[in-house]
Amino acid sequence: MRRDRSQDGINRRSLLATLVLLPTLPETLVPAAAQTEAPGGLLPSWREGPAKQAIFDFVHATTEQSSPTYVAPDDRVAVFDQDGTLWVEQPMYTQVAYCLERIPAVAAKKPELRSIEPFKTVLSGNREAIAKLSLRDLEKILVATLTGMPVEEFQSEVSRWLETARHPRWNRPYTELIFHPMQEVLRYLQSNAFKTYIVTGGGQDFARVYAAKVYGIPPEQVVGTAGTTKFGYGRDGKPFLTKEPKLLLNDDKAGKVEGIYFMIGRRPIAAFGNSVGDREMLEYTRAGQGARLAMLVLHDDASREYVYGPATGLPDSKIGTFTPMLYDEARKQGWTVISMKNDWNRIFAFDV
Amino acid sequence: MRRDRSQDGINRRSLLATLVLLPTLPETLVPAAAQTEAPGGLLPSWREGPAKQAIFDFVHATTEQSSPTYVAPDDRVAVFDQDGTLWVEQPMYTQVAYCLERIPAVAAKKPELRSIEPFKTVLSGNREAIAKLSLRDLEKILVATLTGMPVEEFQSEVSRWLETARHPRWNRPYTELIFHPMQEVLRYLQSNAFKTYIVTGGGQDFARVYAAKVYGIPPEQVVGTAGTTKFGYGRDGKPFLTKEPKLLLNDDKAGKVEGIYFMIGRRPIAAFGNSVGDREMLEYTRAGQGARLAMLVLHDDASREYVYGPATGLPDSKIGTFTPMLYDEARKQGWTVISMKNDWNRIFAFDV
Repeated sequence: MRRDRSQDGINRRSLLATLVLLPTLPETLVPAAAQTEAPGGLLPSWREGPAKQAIFDFVHATTEQSSPTYVAPDDRVAVFDQDGTLWVEQPMYTQVAYCLERIPAVAAKKPELRSIEPFKTVLSGNREAIAKLSLRDLEKILVATLTGMPVEEFQSEVSRWLETARHPRWNRPYTELIFHPMQEVLRYLQSNAFKTYIVTGGGQDFARVYAAKVYGIPPEQVVGTAGTTKFGYGRDGKPFLTKEPKLLLNDDKAGKVEGIYFMIGRRPIAAFGNSVGDREMLEYTRAGQGARLAMLVLHDDASREYVYGPATGLPDSKIGTFTPMLYDEARKQGWTVISMKNDWNRIFAFDV
Repeated sequence: MRRDRSQDGINRRSLLATLVLLPTLPETLVPAAAQTEAPGGLLPSWREGPAKQAIFDFVHATTEQSSPTYVAPDDRVAVFDQDGTLWVEQPMYTQVAYCLERIPAVAAKKPELRSIEPFKTVLSGNREAIAKLSLRDLEKILVATLTGMPVEEFQSEVSRWLETARHPRWNRPYTELIFHPMQEVLRYLQSNAFKTYIVTGGGQDFARVYAAKVYGIPPEQVVGTAGTTKFGYGRDGKPFLTKEPKLLLNDDKAGKVEGIYFMIGRRPIAAFGNSVGDREMLEYTRAGQGARLAMLVLHDDASREYVYGPATGLPDSKIGTFTPMLYDEARKQGWTVISMKNDWNRIFAFDV
């Protein structure tokens, strides 16, 4: 787990008090208790304003025992979309970058792919042509790079890739392109006994490889799009699982709510998203009784990150469709919009 | 959570030591810490012998930091089959009893079912005829009683049933027919930072209704056979989920291992079962490196519970097929067989 200054924003005394009061303890409480308060207080990367205030108000409303909307620690479930909410999703989803960059290794093992589309185009390195690949082409690329291998092999391939791959704009590992203010929210909720989950339209297996290290979220708290696996025995007689090209959970839009029910079994009380893929999850979270927090990240900072979605004033951008319609719904439903430009004084941990 | 004497079998001093050492804390540590040592020491319902010793040896091997097979708290995952391992599964699975007893209420809403098989037979109350229903008939009963309703409605139906339903032999609520020695194992592992999971061939949604109350296991730590749900909006505009008759996870045999990978994302280090449905889960657990615990409950106590499986000397019994073949595999693989008759001095909490 990365340990930098802003993760230290925990009030030690209130934590000790919490230790005494709580019937159960959050998993991350002990590391948090060892932290001392950072100079900026809690959520130091957040500027004062309605977004920061909404987070504080919600945590007070749900964790102070005198509050009429107090929630027992066991029921404090918070869900976070990943791409565009916890880390950068432009110019393409990180997992898609992984799949494209894996193609040479896959083709080295199966040379017959070199002359077949879409692999031929990917191997050509022609970015324009690659950008024009169809959804069906992309599906073939995903199947070739995400399935057919034992689960442990996939995990080590992703780990190795994450160490060497670099984002084209910042020339840094993808795992450094986490939105630092969201890391602070994760830590803040975790230190208040919330169980934090990633609920991603991306691959569950992919995100599980780095979620513990990068977000402090263990594999079982990552819900994502997932395929089936097949049990079998190796030559050594030992059982192992192979990743199959058959969809088990399509964790997007309504599928996120179905995935939450299936994997978590209860309704979250806080949800964070940034696109139409998160709409139903936000609605479902808000539809429960009591204090609820629903937040949408608005990408409106061209100089520090990107501008897309409603911030452009244009119709849907290709990725992370936070549409004008969703923006309207957010206002009507009382979801809080987070302006990256105005609400965050820092985007990444490496920003100074 | 039930709090009776034998759950107090926690050594307070070692717990405090653990508190200091552990980088993370188990969810149930605080209630455990408030307990004082019971006269019988740890696992008081277990007689001295190889089964009890195997549990102690395993916990020492994985939790003492000086041990060469020490396991970090985050990786301490233990899985438990439910029917026949944690509670009574005779004369039929509890969930099947629920489904059969729900039929009158279902038929009251849909009177056309009264004249259709297998509902007609179930409503006749003829036990012999009911016992002869085919697997296909049973499937129709499951679909009629487990699907088609909002998830919250199902949950409250199960809750209500559990309050009034009685096991035919003991005339007690099914939730009192938990094997008390296994409760002690759950608490012992939980107090040693293990994350305990139920991995059941039965319904995930069914077991989640009572797992927290009965076993101290939260819903997200119950993995079971599950159907899909469908997201929709009610007349009030609020989103809700409906249980559908479409299988999502068949959590039995190899499906248990696939379910573990999907829901937990890592290999357990301890597994408890009692039938061929648990075989692959036990094999998979044992196939990992380091200290492992694999245990099989043998039903060999006719006076206090039941005799079936290899204890009968006969081929497979109808339910909970702990076959002679599995018994042989247990010996060859070094799994520990738990004799209910010899290893447990008490079966239920109400035994004195």
